[in-house]
Amino acid sequence: MNILITGGCGFLGARLARTLLQQGSLSLAGAAPRAINRITLADRVAPPEDLRADPRIASAEGDLLELIASGQGLPADTDLVFHLAAAVSGECEADFDLGMRSNLEATQVLLQACRALGSKPVLVFSSSVAVFGDSPEQPLPPVITDTTLPTPQNSYGIQKFIGEQLVADCTRKGFVRGRSVRLMTVSVRPGRPNAAASSFLSGMLREPLAGQRATCPVPPDTAVALSSPGNTVAGLIRAATASDGEWGARTAVNLPALTITVREMAQALERVAGPAATALIAWQPDAQIAKIVTSWPSRIQATRAKGLGLEADASFEAIIRAYAQENPDAVKLEVRG
Amino acid sequence: MNILITGGCGFLGARLARTLLQQGSLSLAGAAPRAINRITLADRVAPPEDLRADPRIASAEGDLLELIASGQGLPADTDLVFHLAAAVSGECEADFDLGMRSNLEATQVLLQACRALGSKPVLVFSSSVAVFGDSPEQPLPPVITDTTLPTPQNSYGIQKFIGEQLVADCTRKGFVRGRSVRLMTVSVRPGRPNAAASSFLSGMLREPLAGQRATCPVPPDTAVALSSPGNTVAGLIRAATASDGEWGARTAVNLPALTITVREMAQALERVAGPAATALIAWQPDAQIAKIVTSWPSRIQATRAKGLGLEADASFEAIIRAYAQENPDAVKLEVRG
Repeated sequence: MNILITGGCGFLGARLARTLLQQGSLSLAGAAPRAINRITLADRVAPPEDLRADPRIASAEGDLLELIASGQGLPADTDLVFHLAAAVSGECEADFDLGMRSNLEATQVLLQACRALGSKPVLVFSSSVAVFGDSPEQPLPPVITDTTLPTPQNSYGIQKFIGEQLVADCTRKGFVRGRSVRLMTVSVRPGRPNAAASSFLSGMLREPLAGQRATCPVPPDTAVALSSPGNTVAGLIRAATASDGEWGARTAVNLPALTITVREMAQALERVAGPAATALIAWQPDAQIAKIVTSWPSRIQATRAKGLGLEADASFEAIIRAYAQENPDAVKLEVRG
Repeated sequence: MNILITGGCGFLGARLARTLLQQGSLSLAGAAPRAINRITLADRVAPPEDLRADPRIASAEGDLLELIASGQGLPADTDLVFHLAAAVSGECEADFDLGMRSNLEATQVLLQACRALGSKPVLVFSSSVAVFGDSPEQPLPPVITDTTLPTPQNSYGIQKFIGEQLVADCTRKGFVRGRSVRLMTVSVRPGRPNAAASSFLSGMLREPLAGQRATCPVPPDTAVALSSPGNTVAGLIRAATASDGEWGARTAVNLPALTITVREMAQALERVAGPAATALIAWQPDAQIAKIVTSWPSRIQATRAKGLGLEADASFEAIIRAYAQENPDAVKLEVRG
């Protein structure tokens, strides 16, 4: 089996690739397991060294739109595409045209390329909880379900929601077997801050654990819907392995989320790494970021995901401990217990 | 005030233009009424003669995408755009790429052109009840509201729903003051059949009244959501006159609909024009058309539209009588009462 991961050298794409390489085979859309022969990572940058060292990894380096347009992005024998590449929420808010190109146009071009294959590949589209947005004119319901009407309050959310519609229609037309999953905010992301409005939801843990200062730009009572990197990758893979019948409707599936306030996140950090860690968090409100993040929902009823056997992370403390274990070099403070 | 109507030479666009010319002025988005100086009709064909004779009518003839791209489609002093141009449902189902170009790409290009004006014109986007679609995997609720999740079951519905999202985001960004209205199936349309799957919902009245045979391709119990031409135009104009506060959320507004079965439509025809009229209807099932039409909802709770003072037509009999009065040359049978 041959797999393409767009945005495959990003944090989530690389983790997905590692997980797939480790399991070695996949039951594609409910079929019998087949060995994974090749995973192509399409991204602006080269794959991380550990992935490059695996003979099953191929790479397509460049702008996704140009890669696909020039025929290099999507190998003709691709069975499964994970479409993760995207401009993030902060970027799309700052540069409307960039978001339309990277998120909408690139998705259209990828779908057309899949259609041209004629082989109906499975396509897992990473949508986002950001399709849901609260506004004074249209308040969000207290709990989000799989059939709640998305009312995105930022361009990123609009573009992801449009992507869901395109994937649904291309599935109905028989161009792909599409599965859109709405990813929750992933925390704790390793590495460096990015331009996502949600970036601090990793940074406020990651930086203190590394002995560095971090800021929390939203009020302590702000509730968020989180998922660990491991749980998020599990959701993406399950979307690929579900049979058409298990998957059901062509609308997007909300992945499960752990609901927690940023205050509780800091408390969990303190239990794991002591008050020296939380002392490094500066609570500095940023109206621009707060406006985006507080418009997202925090309570998600992930009924369809649960039907596929997916569950939310058990606790945020467990998420922090897993991060510390997986990224020993990035943790300078002592982790207790 | 200067107005652009895309698809302005189609039946609905021309009727809208006539109504606007007749009223002579408009309260744009709640402001004081201003005289209508010019209405530009952008379409592939030339305006009907009666409109061409009015000095306030200008025309832009050609493909909308090309007109806009070449700077001819959207005059720089435009205050209000009615975006009605679209490929219809049957066409989009038969030719996916045509629908994507005419409905999605043209809407994107028009929004970019409005943005480039820098004057934040009001833009009324004609979406459609076809954004709602019933499927075995995701049955429609018995009654559709303004917050029901659309699950389009055809490409036309998907493209209209995507258009709503683009209009909402361009409104949020301050590029336009957008108002998306979901039009119900318009009946009775004068003129000739078109490629819309709903075309027969006018034809089964119009053709018998003209003494010609017509077919009804769906079972008699099929319920549909209809609006007369006059009531539909009233909804479009109200979308332009509502203040931002009256309009409310940036999501689309369902226009009111008269719910009726095709059998009841035939019965109303018989009351108006006698059994000679209904004898001309052949009940010939067409699976392809029935599949599209029966996937649309028939019961619409148009709460926001009612808040704007809009109501459904009182009866289908009244709709037929209005058609006969407005189109005397097209009616050969005697209309009673």
